[in-house]
Amino acid sequence: MTDKSDNGALRVPERIVPVPAHASAQARAMLSQPVPPKAQYPALDDAAGWKAHIATMDANVATMFAGRLGDFAHTLTEWREEGALAYDIRPEHWSDADRRVYLYIHGGGLIMGAGEVCKTMTLASTGSYNVRVVSVDYRMPPDHPYPASLDDCMVFYRALLREYQPHQIIIGGGSAGGNLAAATILRARDEGLPLPAAAVLMSPELDLTESGDSHQTNAGLDSMGSLMQANLLYAGGRDLTDPYISPLFGDMAKGFPPTFLSTGTRDLFLSNTVRMHRKLRNAGIHAELHIKEAAPHAGLGSGPEDMEIEIEARGFCMARWAGR
Amino acid sequence: MTDKSDNGALRVPERIVPVPAHASAQARAMLSQPVPPKAQYPALDDAAGWKAHIATMDANVATMFAGRLGDFAHTLTEWREEGALAYDIRPEHWSDADRRVYLYIHGGGLIMGAGEVCKTMTLASTGSYNVRVVSVDYRMPPDHPYPASLDDCMVFYRALLREYQPHQIIIGGGSAGGNLAAATILRARDEGLPLPAAAVLMSPELDLTESGDSHQTNAGLDSMGSLMQANLLYAGGRDLTDPYISPLFGDMAKGFPPTFLSTGTRDLFLSNTVRMHRKLRNAGIHAELHIKEAAPHAGLGSGPEDMEIEIEARGFCMARWAGR
Repeated sequence: MTDKSDNGALRVPERIVPVPAHASAQARAMLSQPVPPKAQYPALDDAAGWKAHIATMDANVATMFAGRLGDFAHTLTEWREEGALAYDIRPEHWSDADRRVYLYIHGGGLIMGAGEVCKTMTLASTGSYNVRVVSVDYRMPPDHPYPASLDDCMVFYRALLREYQPHQIIIGGGSAGGNLAAATILRARDEGLPLPAAAVLMSPELDLTESGDSHQTNAGLDSMGSLMQANLLYAGGRDLTDPYISPLFGDMAKGFPPTFLSTGTRDLFLSNTVRMHRKLRNAGIHAELHIKEAAPHAGLGSGPEDMEIEIEARGFCMARWAGR
Repeated sequence: MTDKSDNGALRVPERIVPVPAHASAQARAMLSQPVPPKAQYPALDDAAGWKAHIATMDANVATMFAGRLGDFAHTLTEWREEGALAYDIRPEHWSDADRRVYLYIHGGGLIMGAGEVCKTMTLASTGSYNVRVVSVDYRMPPDHPYPASLDDCMVFYRALLREYQPHQIIIGGGSAGGNLAAATILRARDEGLPLPAAAVLMSPELDLTESGDSHQTNAGLDSMGSLMQANLLYAGGRDLTDPYISPLFGDMAKGFPPTFLSTGTRDLFLSNTVRMHRKLRNAGIHAELHIKEAAPHAGLGSGPEDMEIEIEARGFCMARWAGR
């Protein structure tokens, strides 16, 4: 039975949580998959161990995103700027007269997702937008802890500001990409740069301290576990509550653009997303919250529930680019 | 450890879920309260047993809402129409030149909340709006199963349509009141009546079949348990999937007004709220979702987290009444 301990904590008994019958076939298949074994993280100083771990995880992510990859005709060129690397992706028939640009920041727990995985994630997420996308292949741990990743994102935001008006730029990303998208905005603002037109934060990893209630309530419901060891590797000894490391703790009242946020009811990052939405709304900033029934962090197998949210996000971006 | 059964269901182990340290003092006090014993429901044909149960629960609800009752100077008169009863509440200094009206439907699991409790819940929820509120003290089980409650709500929507333009009327309610607010809108639409300006659905009980994933995932996290026995009493043998009984199953594409929805991450009705939001958005209807971190169905002790959402809801209504 449910019970309380002396400090008010809830004791929630073991239970069996069925796959919801009303979910789509793809979602039910996703939710029925065996739970993968929890990742065994290397020690923080074991760089070789981390690299092996990252290679394994990258292979998994590449497989997951490959199924989401539409057939979007495009050109992709490498863009090197101040030592940082991005992919400059332009759809077929694109012209420079189209002044919309999406600065995309890939996910991967702030340690994974470089190179080919970055390209795959970018196209799967933004290929249908039919706009120019600049996707940052930012440096990461173990070789490059904070602030290398954020520095690289800043390089390309500054570069885009030389080519575009701020209201033509949208910054977005999922998971760790949501962290870096928000951190880029906070740091750009603090450095006196103008804000972009909008932010898109899909199941964002906004709080590396993992203080949100859903880290507890959705533990075991989301096959993703705590990422704390990776968070510590990323922070490299810095305070995890630094707003550039955990953007949830930023002061939104000092300025933040209109923001699209999405998550799922089983997502370990449900609280990250909900708390950011409340902070933005409390600061008087336009912010939209969209939540997928029964979805864990990884989504619902690219089924219709995932596609609905992609359509919402794209519609939000198109409205922002149109100045609405 | 987390595991899977043959049908894909998750086995989630027992765990201890702490009170979130970042919640307000009021929220932490609420979340630290002892879990009340689960209600023992009478048999469906035990009318006297239900009446005793309802009296006990009404006393609890009155206590809970009394703490939320602001000091709003007003007049309250009983309005009887076609055998139905409502309270017509007008703020001090109100004049008939103010053409805004709120049709409020109280909560209480579709069996409780009549009389003085109805008045208290109405003032606690809408007293700060400073508009005329008509609150339906609808008939309920065990004496009056479906469709009596909905019939009474319809009586006052029709009555208000004789006095007001549809765009001057907002219909809203919490919990069971969210069910009846949505059902009133669906039935009015199907009867050829015009839609109101907006709907406000606070942690709405939209699905009496309790099919939402959060009925499983938040079991034990929300001190509220299944209301199925009350749902069956309310339905009186009718199909629980009837859209007038479970409005989540309505066809929103046939028309629904702009809608404000709120819930909490620990709410047993999280899925109700999220699923309704998605259905409305997929039908192209303006709908806003607002979620309170760590909040169960009963909210967070009228702390700042609850007040934020009240302010959001009021702002939504004011914008709708202003034609924005």
